[in-house]
Amino acid sequence: MHVYHAGGVIHTPVQNDFEIYENAYICVEEDGRVNGIYSVLPKSMMHFPVTDFGDQILIPAFTDGHIHSAQLPNAGLGYDMPFSKWLGELTYPSERRYREKEVYAAVNRQLIMDFWKYGIMHGAIMSSTDYGATENLFEQYLDSGMCALIGKMNSDLPAYGAAAESTEASIRETELLISKYANKNPCVNYALSPEFVPTCSDALMEFLGDAARKHQLPVITHAAEGTEDVEMVRKRFPQLQTYGNVLKHFGLFGGHPAAAVHYNMAEPEELRDMAELGVIYVQCPNSGMDMGTEKLMIMRKAMNYGVPCALGSDIAGGHTCNMFRVMVSAMQLSRITALYEPFEPLKTAEVFYMATKGGGKLFGKTGSFETGYFFDALVLDDGMISPFKAESLRERFERILYAADPACITLRFCKGKRIRAPKNRYTKN
Amino acid sequence: MHVYHAGGVIHTPVQNDFEIYENAYICVEEDGRVNGIYSVLPKSMMHFPVTDFGDQILIPAFTDGHIHSAQLPNAGLGYDMPFSKWLGELTYPSERRYREKEVYAAVNRQLIMDFWKYGIMHGAIMSSTDYGATENLFEQYLDSGMCALIGKMNSDLPAYGAAAESTEASIRETELLISKYANKNPCVNYALSPEFVPTCSDALMEFLGDAARKHQLPVITHAAEGTEDVEMVRKRFPQLQTYGNVLKHFGLFGGHPAAAVHYNMAEPEELRDMAELGVIYVQCPNSGMDMGTEKLMIMRKAMNYGVPCALGSDIAGGHTCNMFRVMVSAMQLSRITALYEPFEPLKTAEVFYMATKGGGKLFGKTGSFETGYFFDALVLDDGMISPFKAESLRERFERILYAADPACITLRFCKGKRIRAPKNRYTKN
Repeated sequence: MHVYHAGGVIHTPVQNDFEIYENAYICVEEDGRVNGIYSVLPKSMMHFPVTDFGDQILIPAFTDGHIHSAQLPNAGLGYDMPFSKWLGELTYPSERRYREKEVYAAVNRQLIMDFWKYGIMHGAIMSSTDYGATENLFEQYLDSGMCALIGKMNSDLPAYGAAAESTEASIRETELLISKYANKNPCVNYALSPEFVPTCSDALMEFLGDAARKHQLPVITHAAEGTEDVEMVRKRFPQLQTYGNVLKHFGLFGGHPAAAVHYNMAEPEELRDMAELGVIYVQCPNSGMDMGTEKLMIMRKAMNYGVPCALGSDIAGGHTCNMFRVMVSAMQLSRITALYEPFEPLKTAEVFYMATKGGGKLFGKTGSFETGYFFDALVLDDGMISPFKAESLRERFERILYAADPACITLRFCKGKRIRAPKNRYTKN
Repeated sequence: MHVYHAGGVIHTPVQNDFEIYENAYICVEEDGRVNGIYSVLPKSMMHFPVTDFGDQILIPAFTDGHIHSAQLPNAGLGYDMPFSKWLGELTYPSERRYREKEVYAAVNRQLIMDFWKYGIMHGAIMSSTDYGATENLFEQYLDSGMCALIGKMNSDLPAYGAAAESTEASIRETELLISKYANKNPCVNYALSPEFVPTCSDALMEFLGDAARKHQLPVITHAAEGTEDVEMVRKRFPQLQTYGNVLKHFGLFGGHPAAAVHYNMAEPEELRDMAELGVIYVQCPNSGMDMGTEKLMIMRKAMNYGVPCALGSDIAGGHTCNMFRVMVSAMQLSRITALYEPFEPLKTAEVFYMATKGGGKLFGKTGSFETGYFFDALVLDDGMISPFKAESLRERFERILYAADPACITLRFCKGKRIRAPKNRYTKN
């Protein structure tokens, strides 16, 4: 057992409210799981070693529910361009370069560095279709001590250009990655990652659905982003009609963990299905706000159907994986759309839940300090953010959230272990 | 003459496009004004001293077109609250505390520090109604080397509570501040600052209009933020009807520099008047996105009428005076509203223009590197932002803009002089 003391402990066991402790102790078992939060340290705990974070604030570490590793170099670039130009001039060239070892090794390393910097101890990462790049991301992640779900993107049908890969290669390489990395490590696991229905053949989706069921692996896929892809799906599957039905039909939703990204065009039945099947909805607010191509799903609407919700950076559709800023953007987006649509804006506790426990559901017991959850935590020092007195811990935390400065994250823990800045396996340092 | 060399020079002499120089020289006259930008240094300039910024990028320093100094401690706080609760629990108490010397001295100092940190060499600051706090802000600013327009807020009628001050005190204190600070210093000047029409008596507005004309001082005021205040103005001035007509009637618009903040409800005639009278429109995107109380003016609409446009932080309606983030928010807001309203989203060059030359119009020749403009500049190092190659200077700049990290601002210049971090006149250091 190890005891941590902090000036404040903040988490969201439920979606709509903070649970806040002043001057509290968190006791963490040897296996890295939280034993409990105590305002007064129980006698039975007093002989354990204590680490005191002073007046700093302890929060659960973040989960980024969706990011494209290959596009990290494009973060912040080209948002003035029309979507097709952005794809052609930035996204595709970036995916092509990501096939070269010296490129993907550097990009993957930077992704891990960025996640570390922003306190993202759990990341759901969609790699490109490239086998080598994906394998390299696994290898580097396994050194980091942090957690990730990583998948080679599957995409064997043409959409905006030629098909990225053959069906046979897609299946063979996915099988190889599954055999190497699926269910082998407590921190890093494989996520089946069909790009989206329009670029996946029936055979490929069947294979992925079978693999998900057989290995109990999560499926993470884009769904129903706009009118165009929804129409393509409707035409191709006249009996099934919706993305949701297609994904269920091929076994991609249901019977194993799953997440759907974007899903702006989800029909009520699809949202009901997600709630029933426990499919996590990942919204990437900056992606919509940076690209401006589609009206985004109103988060409140998905929440009203009982769909479990998470937040993603969607780099490079979105410009940053700073989860503080992703949370602020989610609130800002909801406040603006609430002036046009009949849905209440998101509250601070709600977006914080999504960035911690909500996205954490993809991984298991993370994103909360409830008993039995892993001690995946960030220590926050607000000293450099504002010299002004705060009336409460909540005010201190709100300032940190809106300041969005990663320098306020002074320590990171994953599964009970302190995570230092990742080493570079490609240098001797 | 002094010569500066940089890897890139970026500015926006016109509103809709960047002018970008690679490896260029800027020659600056002894009086701090730009002589010219040169790709090859002319022979006649070669004997002048050169400062080489290496491959760093030089841009015009920012102008924050609107901030409430008294509310700085509230930045990031209370955006879950309904507007009236936010006013009652945060804004008013903050304004009250700002009457105490030890509070306003610390808050004003922090404001100057923040503006320095974020490269805001020109700030339009609305102080509270307090004389002492406003005087202190002038005194501290005069030490800083940076430029500001500062005004004591005028507010002699009750709106949400009691009136903040009497008409007589408002006029007397404003006259005193004008006599001490108006047109006395090249960097810091007085701005007449009526809060908004509903809280200003006819007598007060008459006085302010006269003072603006007589001393040729700028007027900066909130206008037509929502349906409620527009209705109050319509009832009180049945002959004049609109804010614009009232402000013209009392001489607050026209014949001297002026800026209107928010103006979400501006009628077409009001926008035409602003364009004709050169009244600058200051939008504060984060204010709308953080509070979510009103649909904001569509910037493109104001631009289409030829209204000169600027950006403001509106702390604490907005959560930050990081102008990079204010620019990103302006673009994000415009992209979301463009999905609901028939107006093109804002482009990067447009928001950059507003944050530099656009807002700079309140001050004179600042915000651009055109010949005759003051060398008000920021040196940007993108080294820590991204390790990835950029295809162009524009890509390097876009990354800096979206990363929004003030650490990339390595040097600041105002009127040709390097500005160091402000000293604290209240300590001996």
